[in-house]
Amino acid sequence: MRLIRINDNDNVAIVTASCPKGTPLDFGITALSDTPIGHKIALADLKQGDPVFRYGVLLGHLTQDVKKGAWINEFMLDLPSVPALDDLSSEYNPSLENPVAGLKAPRTTFMGYEVPGCRYAGTRNILGITMTVQCAAGVVEVAVRRMKKELLPRYPNVDDIVAVRHPYGCGVAINAPDADIPIRSVRNLARNPNFGGQLMVVALGCEKLTLDKILSPEENNSENVIVLQDCDGFAAMLDALMIMADRKLSILNGRRRTELPLSRLCIGLQCGGSDAFSGITSNPSAGYASDLLVSAGATVMFSEVTEVRDGVHAIARRCLHGEDCTKLAYEMRWYDEYLAKNQVDRSANPTPGNKKGGLSNIVEKAMGSIAKSGRSPISQVIGPGELPTRSGLIFAATPASDIVCGPCQLASGITLEVFMTGRGTPYGLAIAPVLKVSSKTELGDRWRDLIDVNAGVVADGTSSISEVGTDLFNLILDVASGTKQSKAEELGLFNDFLIFNPAPIT
Amino acid sequence: MRLIRINDNDNVAIVTASCPKGTPLDFGITALSDTPIGHKIALADLKQGDPVFRYGVLLGHLTQDVKKGAWINEFMLDLPSVPALDDLSSEYNPSLENPVAGLKAPRTTFMGYEVPGCRYAGTRNILGITMTVQCAAGVVEVAVRRMKKELLPRYPNVDDIVAVRHPYGCGVAINAPDADIPIRSVRNLARNPNFGGQLMVVALGCEKLTLDKILSPEENNSENVIVLQDCDGFAAMLDALMIMADRKLSILNGRRRTELPLSRLCIGLQCGGSDAFSGITSNPSAGYASDLLVSAGATVMFSEVTEVRDGVHAIARRCLHGEDCTKLAYEMRWYDEYLAKNQVDRSANPTPGNKKGGLSNIVEKAMGSIAKSGRSPISQVIGPGELPTRSGLIFAATPASDIVCGPCQLASGITLEVFMTGRGTPYGLAIAPVLKVSSKTELGDRWRDLIDVNAGVVADGTSSISEVGTDLFNLILDVASGTKQSKAEELGLFNDFLIFNPAPIT
Repeated sequence: MRLIRINDNDNVAIVTASCPKGTPLDFGITALSDTPIGHKIALADLKQGDPVFRYGVLLGHLTQDVKKGAWINEFMLDLPSVPALDDLSSEYNPSLENPVAGLKAPRTTFMGYEVPGCRYAGTRNILGITMTVQCAAGVVEVAVRRMKKELLPRYPNVDDIVAVRHPYGCGVAINAPDADIPIRSVRNLARNPNFGGQLMVVALGCEKLTLDKILSPEENNSENVIVLQDCDGFAAMLDALMIMADRKLSILNGRRRTELPLSRLCIGLQCGGSDAFSGITSNPSAGYASDLLVSAGATVMFSEVTEVRDGVHAIARRCLHGEDCTKLAYEMRWYDEYLAKNQVDRSANPTPGNKKGGLSNIVEKAMGSIAKSGRSPISQVIGPGELPTRSGLIFAATPASDIVCGPCQLASGITLEVFMTGRGTPYGLAIAPVLKVSSKTELGDRWRDLIDVNAGVVADGTSSISEVGTDLFNLILDVASGTKQSKAEELGLFNDFLIFNPAPIT
Repeated sequence: MRLIRINDNDNVAIVTASCPKGTPLDFGITALSDTPIGHKIALADLKQGDPVFRYGVLLGHLTQDVKKGAWINEFMLDLPSVPALDDLSSEYNPSLENPVAGLKAPRTTFMGYEVPGCRYAGTRNILGITMTVQCAAGVVEVAVRRMKKELLPRYPNVDDIVAVRHPYGCGVAINAPDADIPIRSVRNLARNPNFGGQLMVVALGCEKLTLDKILSPEENNSENVIVLQDCDGFAAMLDALMIMADRKLSILNGRRRTELPLSRLCIGLQCGGSDAFSGITSNPSAGYASDLLVSAGATVMFSEVTEVRDGVHAIARRCLHGEDCTKLAYEMRWYDEYLAKNQVDRSANPTPGNKKGGLSNIVEKAMGSIAKSGRSPISQVIGPGELPTRSGLIFAATPASDIVCGPCQLASGITLEVFMTGRGTPYGLAIAPVLKVSSKTELGDRWRDLIDVNAGVVADGTSSISEVGTDLFNLILDVASGTKQSKAEELGLFNDFLIFNPAPIT
């Protein structure tokens, strides 16, 4: 049976299918025990305390002796100490190296919706109704149902109406040092390019997230804002919401897609429910697509702090600007402290599913996760919910939680997300198409109606990373241009807008 | 104009309407400046450093001299130091005192749904679909829409189908010391009496909140559980959900209400968007209703840690059992530390709306908030999301955030909530009726289609606390018995299930 060894220095390789004890494997090795698909096999006799390498990276030291052909699982590895942060430096020299110099994107434009004054164009034309506080959610939800029935059919160029119901806004420590993260997330989410520059904000009236925290004085007026406590009851609230929505919809309805350079496109990359194949099939394929996009001027965001923490020096080395190493160290240190004050660390990240999928610890998960960033230089590091000010490959320092990372990236301006999965998740975002890429053919086949691209063909040996990456690149542009839909859109699968609030509930 | 002084020792009183400078007030006082409704007026000349008393309680010390008739606002008071926790003791002696001895509930039964093996009966007959993780939310939501269309009409005795979509389950530090709070909340929420003892749980398959954390080995089987990753794609997921729902609905449909003693009823009390009237109209009226319920054997929960923190000694004195003072001190200390490690304290609680409504600081807000607990002895103190084991008045130590307190109380088993509001909020819970009580007639009139009971009549002088409290008691039993609906139910206003997760996101 085929084994996949990634780096010549690796002393483990993963099995491409579940194999019973005694199965003959590559390199003249025999499986010494039943080994599940994607799990690691020792390529040599190893002793307790020996280092284990995958991706050419130290995953940890063995807690016991193992023979060649043995299954190495999560219980046999000590976690290495966390990399230091005081020595991050960019070694990138554009005049000496360009890891993606040979790449040429097959397409350089897409059909997007221009947004006045906005760096990025929309991929969808959506009326977004942002709440300052969860308290407004019930009323807005009822109103949106009515709008979709009575108003939306009259505006055929508008794709959808979405209530941005998030958990923030009141019952929170609004002046806590970390409150800036959720506040800017709500502010920026209300301005996602897929909302076409139309602000529609619903406040309660007594909440802590006051309107001035998310709107400029020019924006904070009755053209854009409804305060429920100023309305004379529910019927009046509903009337006000319907009237404002009608006005905004008629503006949005007048928009048309135009051909735009990829510099107007901003997409996000994320992985969830990862397994040992993620780092060798779906994530590097997405990385290849990312390199193509970046080479053509697009902005591509990757994220997930606890999943880059163990590869932080490799990330730093790829930064184009020295100041971003400082920012990177700040974001990593902030997250270390956030976890530490709650008495956990990065090792809290891998899930039971990750482990079943062969990922023994956070180092191994991180190396696979980082593969999605391709090989392009990193043009900027931003905090969770912040807006990038440069194009190219961006590291957005969000939590790794799928459910929290997505809304953070939406706040940072993505208009489409590519989501790689090994175990399988039916993830979706209501305001941006999500393309799902499976790491294994088994999942791609079984979840044919949920998975947009199967990268498992790379492990099967029937396709290459560059082929899958190019297909994904083309699909991204087709979906961004509106000529295709993601499976999540077709099925209407959307998760909540769980923006990141590290500050306490009061 | 009428002034309301609560305690004979108070040196401030509140104005019952907004009054211009020069308005003659009670006690021969003249307003020295324009004073908004509900705000405090000095009843005597006071000096910088003098204590200010309302409810007979020290609100703080003056930061400046004020004359009789002056408006005392939030900027003129220093916050007193936080009460100590090492000297809490119960002084309650049932043989010597019974503050509610004279009360006799006019009704002692309600029509509820028996739940096998459950301490409390249901007030509604709902199919609840609990997710172990947010990742499942999109699929479950689509399924619930289809169930409501295709299945629910065939089961006329079932009130609703609700997807319990909460933010927890993965991307969290599942072994953090505080993770027990959200885990038990999900576990107990799945068993709310309004779900009739029918468990229906949807898992993804790779999440951290594994099924064994919320189900017993006997419950964790294909009768009650669908694992999405075990389904062959979306269509198969939908089929599995429809089949299980159909089976559960047919069981629920066979249930009938029966006459039950009030010992089978468990309700929650909460206030939100409070103002200076809350503590003298709506909250004491709810307290009176609570005393009636407790006197007839019901369980009544009040909550909101930061809003009892400044009255913790008064709460402790009312505890029937000395061990609950220890539990109370534990919960208060835990919350103090939770806030402190995020560099805030209880003073982060009042909102801009509270302050506009006349509540100068957390002490004043707390005294009004505690009024909702009436005068009954406290039979038990429980942590957030825990189940009570005694009947009577329970202090459930949840956050004060409306949006988080409600789901915590639902996890603790309430089947109806009474929600007092001064500024007005359209709050609702999908799995239990919420009755809203306004503190002022102005709001009760203006929000006639949202407010169930106007307690403002107490401030108007046209009704008394015992009259409003008795009306509320009767309405609670009517709504619990299904002969009436709450306004939130009529309008379909429901907030999210934001269970309390003090542990970090990973």
